[in-house]
Amino acid sequence: MRILSILPFQTVNTLTSVCPQIGLNITQICLAKECSEDEIVEELLKLNEDPRVHGVYLHLPPASLTSRVLNTLKPEKDVNGISDLNMGRLVRGDLSKGFVPPVASAVLDLLENHGEFQRMEISLIGRRWLQEQQYRPWQLRSLKLQPLTPVPSDIEISRAQTPKPVDQLAEEIGLLPEELEAYGRSKAKVRLSLLDRLHAQPDGKYVLVAGITPTPLGEGKSTVTIGLVQALSAHLKLNSFACLRQPSQGPTFGVKGGAAGGGYAQVIPMEEFNLHLTGDIHAITAANNLVAAAIDARMLHEATQSDKALFSRLVPSVNGVRRFSPIQISRLNRLGINKTDPASLTPEEISTFVRLDLDPSKITWQRVLDTNDRFLRKITVGQASTEKGQIRETGFDIAVASEIMAILALADSLEDMKNRLARMVVGTSRSGEPVTAEDLGVSGALAVLMKDAIKPTLMQTLEGTPVFVHAGPFANIAHGNSSVLADKLALKLVGRDGFVVTEAGFGADIGMEKFFNIKCRASGLRPNVVVLVATVRALKMHGGGPNVSAGAPLPREYIDENLSLVAGGCHSNLRKQIQIAHLFGVPVVVALNVFRTDTQAEIDLVCQLAKECGASDAVPCHHWAQGGRGSLELAQAVNEAASRPSNFQFLYNKEMPIVEKIRTIAKKVYGADDIKLSPEAEAKIDYYSQQGYGSLPICMAKTHLSLSHMPDKKGAPTGFVLPIRDVRASIGAGFVYPLVGTMSTMPGLPTRPCFYDIDLDPVTEEITGLF
Amino acid sequence: MRILSILPFQTVNTLTSVCPQIGLNITQICLAKECSEDEIVEELLKLNEDPRVHGVYLHLPPASLTSRVLNTLKPEKDVNGISDLNMGRLVRGDLSKGFVPPVASAVLDLLENHGEFQRMEISLIGRRWLQEQQYRPWQLRSLKLQPLTPVPSDIEISRAQTPKPVDQLAEEIGLLPEELEAYGRSKAKVRLSLLDRLHAQPDGKYVLVAGITPTPLGEGKSTVTIGLVQALSAHLKLNSFACLRQPSQGPTFGVKGGAAGGGYAQVIPMEEFNLHLTGDIHAITAANNLVAAAIDARMLHEATQSDKALFSRLVPSVNGVRRFSPIQISRLNRLGINKTDPASLTPEEISTFVRLDLDPSKITWQRVLDTNDRFLRKITVGQASTEKGQIRETGFDIAVASEIMAILALADSLEDMKNRLARMVVGTSRSGEPVTAEDLGVSGALAVLMKDAIKPTLMQTLEGTPVFVHAGPFANIAHGNSSVLADKLALKLVGRDGFVVTEAGFGADIGMEKFFNIKCRASGLRPNVVVLVATVRALKMHGGGPNVSAGAPLPREYIDENLSLVAGGCHSNLRKQIQIAHLFGVPVVVALNVFRTDTQAEIDLVCQLAKECGASDAVPCHHWAQGGRGSLELAQAVNEAASRPSNFQFLYNKEMPIVEKIRTIAKKVYGADDIKLSPEAEAKIDYYSQQGYGSLPICMAKTHLSLSHMPDKKGAPTGFVLPIRDVRASIGAGFVYPLVGTMSTMPGLPTRPCFYDIDLDPVTEEITGLF
Repeated sequence: MRILSILPFQTVNTLTSVCPQIGLNITQICLAKECSEDEIVEELLKLNEDPRVHGVYLHLPPASLTSRVLNTLKPEKDVNGISDLNMGRLVRGDLSKGFVPPVASAVLDLLENHGEFQRMEISLIGRRWLQEQQYRPWQLRSLKLQPLTPVPSDIEISRAQTPKPVDQLAEEIGLLPEELEAYGRSKAKVRLSLLDRLHAQPDGKYVLVAGITPTPLGEGKSTVTIGLVQALSAHLKLNSFACLRQPSQGPTFGVKGGAAGGGYAQVIPMEEFNLHLTGDIHAITAANNLVAAAIDARMLHEATQSDKALFSRLVPSVNGVRRFSPIQISRLNRLGINKTDPASLTPEEISTFVRLDLDPSKITWQRVLDTNDRFLRKITVGQASTEKGQIRETGFDIAVASEIMAILALADSLEDMKNRLARMVVGTSRSGEPVTAEDLGVSGALAVLMKDAIKPTLMQTLEGTPVFVHAGPFANIAHGNSSVLADKLALKLVGRDGFVVTEAGFGADIGMEKFFNIKCRASGLRPNVVVLVATVRALKMHGGGPNVSAGAPLPREYIDENLSLVAGGCHSNLRKQIQIAHLFGVPVVVALNVFRTDTQAEIDLVCQLAKECGASDAVPCHHWAQGGRGSLELAQAVNEAASRPSNFQFLYNKEMPIVEKIRTIAKKVYGADDIKLSPEAEAKIDYYSQQGYGSLPICMAKTHLSLSHMPDKKGAPTGFVLPIRDVRASIGAGFVYPLVGTMSTMPGLPTRPCFYDIDLDPVTEEITGLF
Repeated sequence: MRILSILPFQTVNTLTSVCPQIGLNITQICLAKECSEDEIVEELLKLNEDPRVHGVYLHLPPASLTSRVLNTLKPEKDVNGISDLNMGRLVRGDLSKGFVPPVASAVLDLLENHGEFQRMEISLIGRRWLQEQQYRPWQLRSLKLQPLTPVPSDIEISRAQTPKPVDQLAEEIGLLPEELEAYGRSKAKVRLSLLDRLHAQPDGKYVLVAGITPTPLGEGKSTVTIGLVQALSAHLKLNSFACLRQPSQGPTFGVKGGAAGGGYAQVIPMEEFNLHLTGDIHAITAANNLVAAAIDARMLHEATQSDKALFSRLVPSVNGVRRFSPIQISRLNRLGINKTDPASLTPEEISTFVRLDLDPSKITWQRVLDTNDRFLRKITVGQASTEKGQIRETGFDIAVASEIMAILALADSLEDMKNRLARMVVGTSRSGEPVTAEDLGVSGALAVLMKDAIKPTLMQTLEGTPVFVHAGPFANIAHGNSSVLADKLALKLVGRDGFVVTEAGFGADIGMEKFFNIKCRASGLRPNVVVLVATVRALKMHGGGPNVSAGAPLPREYIDENLSLVAGGCHSNLRKQIQIAHLFGVPVVVALNVFRTDTQAEIDLVCQLAKECGASDAVPCHHWAQGGRGSLELAQAVNEAASRPSNFQFLYNKEMPIVEKIRTIAKKVYGADDIKLSPEAEAKIDYYSQQGYGSLPICMAKTHLSLSHMPDKKGAPTGFVLPIRDVRASIGAGFVYPLVGTMSTMPGLPTRPCFYDIDLDPVTEEITGLF
């Protein structure tokens, strides 16, 4: 049994020290940063010929494992296949798949032979292991559900299910141990290196869940999304991933409660989903507020120091030498000063360099907190005597409204995120020039603060199927979609015949339109199917039913059968939202989220009319009460629709003038006759066009409660002109956002916030009152 | 080889399903929450006699594994020893220690015999495994250091060393897998259940690192702390733990840089130590600001609603029934209203219940951010029209100044933390009554937000020895020590002959005094040794050397040998600080943190005079340049001093009147002739005494740059009267803090903050510019 004791050893370093004991001389190649492909190949050629070397382990990042490198090493010396992480784990993990890595196989041979071992030929298995890294159907162990009636509270359902250890889930879906960073037992960040490893892997099918115009109570897009992947993965055994937004903690303690789905279609543990998660929103808060602190501190220092004093502090003498930092050279370049020696700057150049000269009345950057704190909506800062009278009015937004959140959602690599952070415009100088985060010298620090936030968080549904939770930008002043990176990682992991289901905020006129025109434009990804969520309740409202509002009891029309109201809703709002999806060339499956009070006749009518309105299919969903089993019909319909060709196209060419892009959306999507710009909006559009931002896509900030700008106009309003009150821009995120009406970017707390019921049992550590 | 394939199975549930395959019937006992010891014993007696049951696995929390329960189960049926986590892991982990858990042993037998297996006697090994849970010397694999000259930058040193995987470190120091919650590769939270498991284990030796009064440049307490544990663990092979404070992120991007130690005495990876860590400070920010939002929102709602409207919202009718939530019942009890039926309250009682009636001018709760944002020191909030004119002046502190941070540092269980959070006083009502977080209904939610923050974070030093990072309260308005819980966990983990080394902020007159009088009083722990850190530089300053200030070049006196200045410092400040430690009955070892410019004569003189002044020993330390090897002499001196008896005593009885406690500290510790209270301070003391807070310990908010209140008085000033400007209280944390002078609780950004140099390479993901 002597040999079993090597199993716990974990690193390649140990491996190379153990192998000699069993007669193997294995050389490890590590990559020095500056090492070129030529140098690696040259080294390998030497090792190929060296008779003292029995095997070579390529300890290289995936990007360096080029086919030339892989083909250079003699197959009989190729021992790749032992991860540098946990050999014991690989041995076990792969045994169950009928595969044994080479050194493990030596160990196992030894076990069987009980003999001494002098020398061995390294087989081709190492290469086979590399192939194994490619796609295959998951061996997913789903968690069994036994739904109760009546359906218990969300937190009770969540707690009653024991999630799989996240490393087990990760292994089941083909992640390597070194691609995972666990955060506790049930959530883990996934490294972006996965994209390199699987870059040759074909993407899966890409499904967007959108909705008809909702009532203020919401129509259940998240639960449909989760129910759908539970059905696809756990019941149809098709690889599938849900990609969800991380919820803000503000509403969790305010009015809305959690956002992990609900009933038997949830992400678990729901309290971890709703609280802190892996800290991404906290990182955004820290980064956002570092920019804000830098803005005010810089204005103070500029106001109280001469050019010379500023310069000598900004470019300090260290051991008698002054040097620009790289971020300062970037600023000099943008200013057209192509010098690198601080001593060579003219006084005018020094002045230009050291003075951002921010106009306090034109600072657009706000501070943020992930708390519903209405008293911070408008504040005056700088009132302490130490700030020397530099007071100004500003405000806080909820953290998810930060431009940095929108950047996190749209970035497609660390480098892209860093560049976007640098480009963020925080305000305008007195001479009208935009001032960026890079001008403030802070963009490198922002990238450092955000370096972990860029990795999506892996969690699981109630049925043990994988979920990425990543980013959650506002759906009005931003685009309201989860991250590009999570979708990309998931599309590789599910592989060719798998599904990635993601969700767009608000109704399809807003969330879906932005998903297509902004997110798909940024990512290059193309959707295969739109799932359009409808409820009998919302359809009745659009068909002329009375007002629905949060807190008030639901009128009788919504509880009793009323086929004419249902039909009215189908013929107006539902038809229009289907048409919007078809504008982009994507097939639509209507998912009717069934409530207890819906009658069979109502359900049948919706499904029939939806198909008449152009939906590929329309099915009722019972995920809330039954989990994935209740969404089987939807899963089949989506699988069927995804097999048809999709002819995706953008609604507008981004090179069109800003006004034309806005007009296109207003007319084609909202059904407006035209748009009307306020003078302020016109001036801003001129300014942005002149600054070179004219080709950015448009992110409309419009109410989600109507296709029009008037929240009380239900159905499919026509004959209106869309007023554009103002226009703003998130340059780093990369969109211009016209304001149609006033958008609150900081919620408040009601008289009795949710937190009254939230508690923790200090003995069992169980949370109560989250929903 | 059939059986090997069971190794990856992970849970006891699986174990119980696998055992039948090999002929074993193992029953698992799980603990229902309400299950008494008697009931467990009764069940076990039945299982003892049941011939169908071959073994019993006790799946009970450690607290229920009483000796009576353990002794009831027949030894031959006792299969404890299989963790419910990862059986494969245990098999491997324990094989290396010569121990094989019973079922694993069955599997191994099978492997050897290749035969069928019908029935087996369960051996006593299960019980032996339980004993293994007790203390033993660690088998710590230390990381080798090869110090370079000149010493590279901190981040370069940190990056050049590869940390052990944190789960490996955890296993080496005796943690069970289920006690660990990894956060990425190199840090993990440790569950408090460890305290239950090891409650019978004797504590290790408890060492406090304090310092003489420092120059504004700091004298290196953190590096001494880390160097000392590197020497103890990696070189003397004595179990030892460093317990450090988590640094605020504000200064990391402002002036100070990181706080992970420095040179070859660091916590690694230093960037993870300095950034976000495991999110504790972010959790504090969220909790603190939820209280703030609740305060202002409540004042708004009270100002705009009748008693009746408030009551019907605070105690809403749900399905026709009104019920108080538990947190509301607590408030009713405190108000002396012993009713539980909302309908039974009189109008007066309703009014008392619904109106906190906070006096806006007497709100002491501030918002916080972990950013150096000086413009938030004094602000006006509530200026948006939605807040209906309810404006007021308030401010933000840096997050580590939050009372919640002090609570985190002083709590000794989840329940204790929750109770302290509920007791926090946020302001005073118009009738002069304190208003608490529980009155706001928010204390349960705060506990939920802080439930993970209460678990200390495990990291490692450059030499691979363990470190807990946990809490970091301000050292002036709070007590400036890391957490009680980290110290308690560490003392159990090191065991009887091991060492826990922790650090107190500022000079010994502040940090050490608070460590003894506040932290040790709260924890019940008793220190064995004080390590007093001195530098030749600081001693020269106290001996009459010229002013030392950050940013300015160091005067010649500090670079050239000057024995008389050194002697002056030893005879004044060093002697006094040693005497302060002796007031508490604790032996002192002086650690001279050696700088490159120190001469041998200076070093020898300090060591000689320190011993003449009463130190048990005094030794030079070279950890910055050499790591643990450079602190060997200190480690030996500490080991020696810890073997002597310590006669610890508090400086004052907490039942003494507040004024007398302040006077005692001022006279005995600072060397003042007396104290002088401002009228405001007197009034506050009267108010606190009257409210029943008179027996809280005292947390002086005094400059750390002098033993007196005058920062420019160096050495050991005498003949002064200590002025007490104001007195405040942190009721939840549990101390009264007199203000001696003005304390800034929000740092600012300089003209060129650190962030100019901080950057991230998007390809290698390496961080530059952190120090």
